Amino acid sequence: MARVGIVDVGSGTARLVVYEYEPGRWYRLVDEMREPVRLGEGLAESGRLAPAAMQRALAFLAAVRDYATATGLERLEAFATSAVRSAENGAELLQPARLLGVPLRVLSGEEEARYGALAVSGGLEVEQAWVMDLGGGSAQISRLEERRWRWGRAYPLGAVRLTEQFLRHDPPKAREVEELRDFVAARLEEVTTAMRGDAAVLVGMGGTVRNLARAVRRQQRYPLEQLHSYSLRAEDLEALVERLQGLSAAKRKRVAGISADRSDVIVAGALVWREVLRLARRSEMVISGFGVREGAFFRHFLPPPHLPESVRELHLASLEARFPQQSEHIQSVRRLVAELFAGLKPLHRLGPRSARLLDAAARLHDIGLAIDFYDHHKHGAYLVQNHVFAGWSHREQALLSLLVRYHRKGRPAAGAFRELLGAEGEEELQKLAVILRLAEHLERARSGRVTSLAVEVKDASVVLRLGGPENAWVEAWEAQKDAALFSRVFGRRLVISQEVAQQPGRQHEA
Amino acid sequence: MARVGIVDVGSGTARLVVYEYEPGRWYRLVDEMREPVRLGEGLAESGRLAPAAMQRALAFLAAVRDYATATGLERLEAFATSAVRSAENGAELLQPARLLGVPLRVLSGEEEARYGALAVSGGLEVEQAWVMDLGGGSAQISRLEERRWRWGRAYPLGAVRLTEQFLRHDPPKAREVEELRDFVAARLEEVTTAMRGDAAVLVGMGGTVRNLARAVRRQQRYPLEQLHSYSLRAEDLEALVERLQGLSAAKRKRVAGISADRSDVIVAGALVWREVLRLARRSEMVISGFGVREGAFFRHFLPPPHLPESVRELHLASLEARFPQQSEHIQSVRRLVAELFAGLKPLHRLGPRSARLLDAAARLHDIGLAIDFYDHHKHGAYLVQNHVFAGWSHREQALLSLLVRYHRKGRPAAGAFRELLGAEGEEELQKLAVILRLAEHLERARSGRVTSLAVEVKDASVVLRLGGPENAWVEAWEAQKDAALFSRVFGRRLVISQEVAQQPGRQHEA
Repeated sequence: MARVGIVDVGSGTARLVVYEYEPGRWYRLVDEMREPVRLGEGLAESGRLAPAAMQRALAFLAAVRDYATATGLERLEAFATSAVRSAENGAELLQPARLLGVPLRVLSGEEEARYGALAVSGGLEVEQAWVMDLGGGSAQISRLEERRWRWGRAYPLGAVRLTEQFLRHDPPKAREVEELRDFVAARLEEVTTAMRGDAAVLVGMGGTVRNLARAVRRQQRYPLEQLHSYSLRAEDLEALVERLQGLSAAKRKRVAGISADRSDVIVAGALVWREVLRLARRSEMVISGFGVREGAFFRHFLPPPHLPESVRELHLASLEARFPQQSEHIQSVRRLVAELFAGLKPLHRLGPRSARLLDAAARLHDIGLAIDFYDHHKHGAYLVQNHVFAGWSHREQALLSLLVRYHRKGRPAAGAFRELLGAEGEEELQKLAVILRLAEHLERARSGRVTSLAVEVKDASVVLRLGGPENAWVEAWEAQKDAALFSRVFGRRLVISQEVAQQPGRQHEA
Repeated sequence: MARVGIVDVGSGTARLVVYEYEPGRWYRLVDEMREPVRLGEGLAESGRLAPAAMQRALAFLAAVRDYATATGLERLEAFATSAVRSAENGAELLQPARLLGVPLRVLSGEEEARYGALAVSGGLEVEQAWVMDLGGGSAQISRLEERRWRWGRAYPLGAVRLTEQFLRHDPPKAREVEELRDFVAARLEEVTTAMRGDAAVLVGMGGTVRNLARAVRRQQRYPLEQLHSYSLRAEDLEALVERLQGLSAAKRKRVAGISADRSDVIVAGALVWREVLRLARRSEMVISGFGVREGAFFRHFLPPPHLPESVRELHLASLEARFPQQSEHIQSVRRLVAELFAGLKPLHRLGPRSARLLDAAARLHDIGLAIDFYDHHKHGAYLVQNHVFAGWSHREQALLSLLVRYHRKGRPAAGAFRELLGAEGEEELQKLAVILRLAEHLERARSGRVTSLAVEVKDASVVLRLGGPENAWVEAWEAQKDAALFSRVFGRRLVISQEVAQQPGRQHEA
């Protein structure tokens, strides 16, 4: 198991994140230190890093050094972005940083854009994308083709910088907002024109857009915690920007979802995002919770070209690695759901995406046991909801969590996810939940002894013929209890059949 | 690590529970199989076990045998209670059970009462108690003195039995209810008279009273999931019984908290409980989620006399064992909270119970890391809320969960637990949360290098002097951020002092 610390000294925030990982297999974030150092403060006016700002950044780096030494963190990659890059005296920071034991690399605009692109190719299942990362000092825009970075550059449109340059009143005057908008539009005209005719998805990145998305979701009581891969609609952003620009910084601080230490620069950032969506004529964008730091991490975690084979698989495997389960049981349930899914195809008529989802649910169904046996289905759902399921859509994550929730009892229902799933999703839930539950019960003894399963779909019934080296009495007994649910979902009587040896009781036919 | 299966064939439900444990140290439930076999069905009328009922019980035992073989569960203790004990033909069940490989021991009324008593001495911190366990066939009542069973016997007052004997209409007629009540009162007169003048707490046990308590809590939106050690008030029970006895079984099934398979016998059981509280003139009783099965388990888990040294410690340790944390860090935080608690005594004026709670919070504060770094304070609170915190009151469990919740960020608030905690509890939360957070930040590098801590309480400020072999720069930096919270709670400015060597930045005095 390896460990690496990534230090990112931005124009607004400086941060250390520490990852634990097994190269290429799984990873997890284990610690974070965050400080709103505002390194870019005053930069727009003077073109220089202010002494107080440099001192704050160095104090943070001293803390990082200290932390790394105390925790035995040997691999540390530290970089600085826009503020240091564009300040006349940016280089003045590098010598003391080296002396403190945290040598800083200054990323060029292109490198920063490339890191952001790596965060997207490692964190979203998209082939073609525009990626925009808005920070305190600059905005990086890149174009990904077949998951690889093809083009990108930085624009001097960071939230801290634009606030200082344009928004001198609190709340800003209409004229100031207009000037800022004109400035942004002029700078982004060319790139947004290119976006306009392009089917590639637009990905939004950075603290500002995360805050904006969080604020929109709070208003709508969005049912998932996870921000990553959320679709932010242009109309929701428009409404939010309208509201924010009329408030003072003190009042913006109290808007749910907006962090206190961003409240004074959020309006400038929000205006940039709104302008991009307008100019590119986009009705939505996908939020990436991953950013430059994750991109930098993937360079350590994955061999060149630093792309996971499957984003979906990587993040599923990372959750599995965290909560080891009984692997023979899991394998048996996976085999059984696959056989049931194939055999019941005439009844469910679902496609390969559903099969993939069902297989993932089979892999995760017992993770809640790590918390407690009682209600482990609920605990498992909690874990699924609280994991960063990168590569999976929110709809898929919600379905996964519901499948885990209903894998052993209860009447499957979308609950808080009703709106997210829609009627079709709710129907898919019903079908997949029955299959998963049947498989779980056919593995009641967790011994893998139901080695074959023939599914016969008849007019009024479905017959499951269990095969295997020994009599799976308890499995048949448990699976039979699912007959009512089965019949409600598939409209067929469930018949479970196997040769019963000397056990007492009835033949297992319903 | 040991494993044992306990099989309990009751008059209503038969159950297998499987425990994993390290003798005397920690345990956890890992699986359960439950079947409403209704072995006692028809018994009141005929005095005999019905052939169909026996067959259901044997089918369940066959499933148990099967499960045990398939999972390699070698230690299995199986017992039957009231139904087998009192049926003329009870012994007829024993031979086939033995042949199936699950030999059944028939517990005498006294043995059953003793098992229930062990469940209480292992699951609640009470020295003196009356314990009543109401099952399908009988009710066992015991007296515990200094946690040991002193006296006990079984009464023929089980919920299934009384239903058959008295409540022939659905819903029952007033006359039937009255006859049942007279019957119960006559049987229990002597023992409830003994309870009346006695300060020992009354503990309620068994599925019926768990269902009743659950129904009461549902109506009141009780904030904790855990039923164990809940105080059920007589007035709430009275109101519920009033409601239930007017409903048909079909309607009772739909009362939130009442399980479907108990809905037809719940009224008889509820009437017994009401009568006991009335006759004993009790305004409340404590619900034990632990019962005969847990009592039987404790006999395996603990050496004679099968009492844990501390119930509180055992169940805290069981949670710790599930989510191993960085033990040096935990030890350092425990040391720091103890020093802060002692040094700030003039300001908080809290006693040894609070110190114990704070120490437990220090032990558990990081368990949420097992789920994810982000929001690990929230995950930890979830884990605390979902663990069976036997030996701790619900108020303590709520406080523990809130202390974990607020150990690193956020403004401590009781939230859903406001009513449970009261104003005093909320104040205690504030004080303990500041102390825990300070200790956590003084351990920011997780290196234990703040080895001493002098607390000086002055008129307008509190000075913390950090001592240790090296400069704890990052710790001082982080702890200083708690100054605002500290001053709000303790009304004093927080000053953190240590010799600062060559690090840049300001002297660490606020």
